[in-house]
Amino acid sequence: MRRSVIGGAKRSSLFLLNQAHRSLLSPSPPPLHHHLGSSPSSSATALLLLLRRLSSSSASSPPPPNMSNPVTVQSINPKVLQCEYAVRGEIVNLAQRLQEELKANPGSLPFDEILYCNIGNPQSLGQLPITFFREVLALCDHPTILDKAETQGLFSADSIERAWQILDQIPGRATGAYSHSQGIKGLRDTIAAGIEARDGFPANPNDIFLTDGASPAVHMMMQLLISSEKDGILCPIPQYPLYSASIALHGGSLIPYYLDEETGWGLEVSELKKQLEEARSKGISVRALVVINPGNPTGQVLAEENQRDIVEFCKKEGLVLLADEVYQENIYVPEKKFHSFKKVARSMGYGDNDLCLVSFQSVSKGYHGECGKRGGYMEITGFSPEVREQIYKVASVNLCSNISGQILASLVMSPPKVGDESYESYSAEKDGILESLARRAKTLEDAFNSLEGITCNKAEGAMYLFPRIRLPEKAIKAAEAAKTAPDLFYCRHLLNATGVVVVPGSGFGQVRTCFKMLS
Amino acid sequence: MRRSVIGGAKRSSLFLLNQAHRSLLSPSPPPLHHHLGSSPSSSATALLLLLRRLSSSSASSPPPPNMSNPVTVQSINPKVLQCEYAVRGEIVNLAQRLQEELKANPGSLPFDEILYCNIGNPQSLGQLPITFFREVLALCDHPTILDKAETQGLFSADSIERAWQILDQIPGRATGAYSHSQGIKGLRDTIAAGIEARDGFPANPNDIFLTDGASPAVHMMMQLLISSEKDGILCPIPQYPLYSASIALHGGSLIPYYLDEETGWGLEVSELKKQLEEARSKGISVRALVVINPGNPTGQVLAEENQRDIVEFCKKEGLVLLADEVYQENIYVPEKKFHSFKKVARSMGYGDNDLCLVSFQSVSKGYHGECGKRGGYMEITGFSPEVREQIYKVASVNLCSNISGQILASLVMSPPKVGDESYESYSAEKDGILESLARRAKTLEDAFNSLEGITCNKAEGAMYLFPRIRLPEKAIKAAEAAKTAPDLFYCRHLLNATGVVVVPGSGFGQVRTCFKMLS
Repeated sequence: MRRSVIGGAKRSSLFLLNQAHRSLLSPSPPPLHHHLGSSPSSSATALLLLLRRLSSSSASSPPPPNMSNPVTVQSINPKVLQCEYAVRGEIVNLAQRLQEELKANPGSLPFDEILYCNIGNPQSLGQLPITFFREVLALCDHPTILDKAETQGLFSADSIERAWQILDQIPGRATGAYSHSQGIKGLRDTIAAGIEARDGFPANPNDIFLTDGASPAVHMMMQLLISSEKDGILCPIPQYPLYSASIALHGGSLIPYYLDEETGWGLEVSELKKQLEEARSKGISVRALVVINPGNPTGQVLAEENQRDIVEFCKKEGLVLLADEVYQENIYVPEKKFHSFKKVARSMGYGDNDLCLVSFQSVSKGYHGECGKRGGYMEITGFSPEVREQIYKVASVNLCSNISGQILASLVMSPPKVGDESYESYSAEKDGILESLARRAKTLEDAFNSLEGITCNKAEGAMYLFPRIRLPEKAIKAAEAAKTAPDLFYCRHLLNATGVVVVPGSGFGQVRTCFKMLS
Repeated sequence: MRRSVIGGAKRSSLFLLNQAHRSLLSPSPPPLHHHLGSSPSSSATALLLLLRRLSSSSASSPPPPNMSNPVTVQSINPKVLQCEYAVRGEIVNLAQRLQEELKANPGSLPFDEILYCNIGNPQSLGQLPITFFREVLALCDHPTILDKAETQGLFSADSIERAWQILDQIPGRATGAYSHSQGIKGLRDTIAAGIEARDGFPANPNDIFLTDGASPAVHMMMQLLISSEKDGILCPIPQYPLYSASIALHGGSLIPYYLDEETGWGLEVSELKKQLEEARSKGISVRALVVINPGNPTGQVLAEENQRDIVEFCKKEGLVLLADEVYQENIYVPEKKFHSFKKVARSMGYGDNDLCLVSFQSVSKGYHGECGKRGGYMEITGFSPEVREQIYKVASVNLCSNISGQILASLVMSPPKVGDESYESYSAEKDGILESLARRAKTLEDAFNSLEGITCNKAEGAMYLFPRIRLPEKAIKAAEAAKTAPDLFYCRHLLNATGVVVVPGSGFGQVRTCFKMLS
């Protein structure tokens, strides 16, 4: 039913990308597409700078209250202005306008559909959900059909059994009730058992906080750790912009550490140390280190030895280790394997009192890609009871995460097992998706490396490629003339020419793109 | 299936409540229950004060970094420490401990189950979900069964039709994909049409932001409006503690205005004015007025005339009107009717440019009570395009709210209509729930008013009663001796004696309780 989403544009989009890329590398870059040239919001960056200037000037002499318009960009929280979120920024806004134009005037653009490769959103590009997971969710949503005869014909036996098990874990079987602030205890038991099975070390259900995807969990930790701009968080560059956005919204300082493209986006502890010391010399109290493994947007998978060094570094320097492990199922090279940071720390002999560690997991990624369900959790270890009480309080203010997302998080950590009726179909669906992702990663990597001026590292994991594009001087000049960063200029041109939505590489002269568009 | 949740404890809980209340009013109040007397967290308030003291002392002389324990209550964000959230505070923690004790040693306590009346969570107390809503959700979760023959026997025809309609509104029919940051456009169209039908004034789908319940929407507005403690938000007292918690987390100032218990929790504009002027005289820039209508926890329904005065006040004083309208379906007295603030403003001739107005709605309340689904929306009008862009950006950082919650929000605003197959069963379920809530409101109100030392206003709407309890001097002294606020002392005693969980009235010498426990 949903297969039509990818449609016939797949092959041609690689062709269009190729063409558009070549045209931009040509000696006389084309003028900005008319859709943007005339748009008042053609340069989000410039607008933001303007807003910031307005904002800071207002701080020194507050304007009189404007009765007819009490809220202006000058009067809102400057942290909101400072926050940027490129994966849903200007390029996506342009894409939405183009989509409306395509709808209003079919055939008016050089492409027939928009391919959103700006974010890991597999089901929007035609990936089907895992049947077993959806069966269980449907039965938990409408449990009155559980004991009807027709249900046996429509649903697998183990999905019916699993739905009963889950309902029995929910007080009153009420899937429409707020749960415990950390999530339903029985589901946390299941998740803890899944973590134990994965790592070979114990996991405590009371350490688990179920959340609406990983984003709210990241915000919760930033809210806890950041009091002012004097609190710093070490973040990889390139990074998933949730981190920079969340740090900005909470008023902290992002302390960048640079992944080394030459060594396949390697993470060097010497670089961490250098940046930590530089930040400390400026009076910044560095509170935590964010590590994204497998990497987003860079796709690298850390070696266990490297992870040990990182654990040692956090332990020695008194940093909270914030481990973004949402791509733990997305590894495409046989020589690499996912190791959770908790497993690595425990195998080094570090217990609960030795290291403050938070592991983020999400139902949005992996082979399941259930982004719209907004399920996820964080496992927190090493925090004192008093601090945990504060984390619990913040979780309580939002009452609980959505129950379907909670159920799905438990399913992801406890999928069908050998012998279950659904095991075979589940395995076939899972393997098909992971093989397809691996194949597309390779296809796109090869395509990028075959284009003039583009180099691209191997995608070991996650869902993205982060190619490096060397633009000729003339293209950079044209971007300057258009008051646009060169990478934004390139992404905009690519979108206008092909309908492919990618994300500019935050001023690194690189373009991030997602490879899920090609099969 | 779920009816057993209420169980046989219903009648006896009123009896126990009565007994416990009388024993506390007796000349020699009983000693604190042993479960708490020996607990280290027996006084959350005192603990918090201690933490604050630690926190402020650390601000003047920062402690050296503690390598073995990098996160302490002294080093976390003081705004987190300052935030309080009574509906899930100490009393609920005690209840959870008692529940564990009941499980481990059945019969060891004077009651057999815990009744959580601390929060409006109807399905946890046995209220069944609306069948039509759950049918549609299940079908959208697992659309592959939509065209199977057995499905016709299990689901109503209009639920199948509605599921198809909704799937057609979702790009690629992908319920597992991230949506537009404001929510799926087609669902916002449906919601806008529902608002128009309710108010008789146009609603724009682009003004709607779908959210995971109303709480994240409230946080989003607080984040936008609050830059520092110099930004004030006018809030009713008594208030739903989400507002005080959110203002504290964002570092703003709560400017209280007092609802008048003598006039059935009346909201006087003269009181608003007085508090506004007092705050301004202290240099606070008051940004917004929160109005909860129907009231939470007070249950009053504002008269239209009163609402006009409030609109006029906000317009004149340049305040954003934050209208918490999540109880719009919960009105139990024939002489009162819900009018949205937008309808009132539009009927006064005020258009989009005259007033910044935000209306919060939730699937958690109403007759449906789908708290665990975390669905809701805010409709924002009167903001400039530049400010809306900032709101959109903040919404984007969390990508989108959960799709099931989005679908449910559209169903709530567009339920079955006369002629639809489900209309009759839907109406019967809805009317049954609302009548039962009204009956229980009256039963509990009468019960309270029959008890010595308790008075309680009429519950016109919402889901709560907020009785006033006059404690004798000796009880207050006993509370003081236990270093506990008298209302907290009372609530703790009530819980230990009856298993009924209520919320202390935040130092107003009143107890808030929810009436859903009795049928």
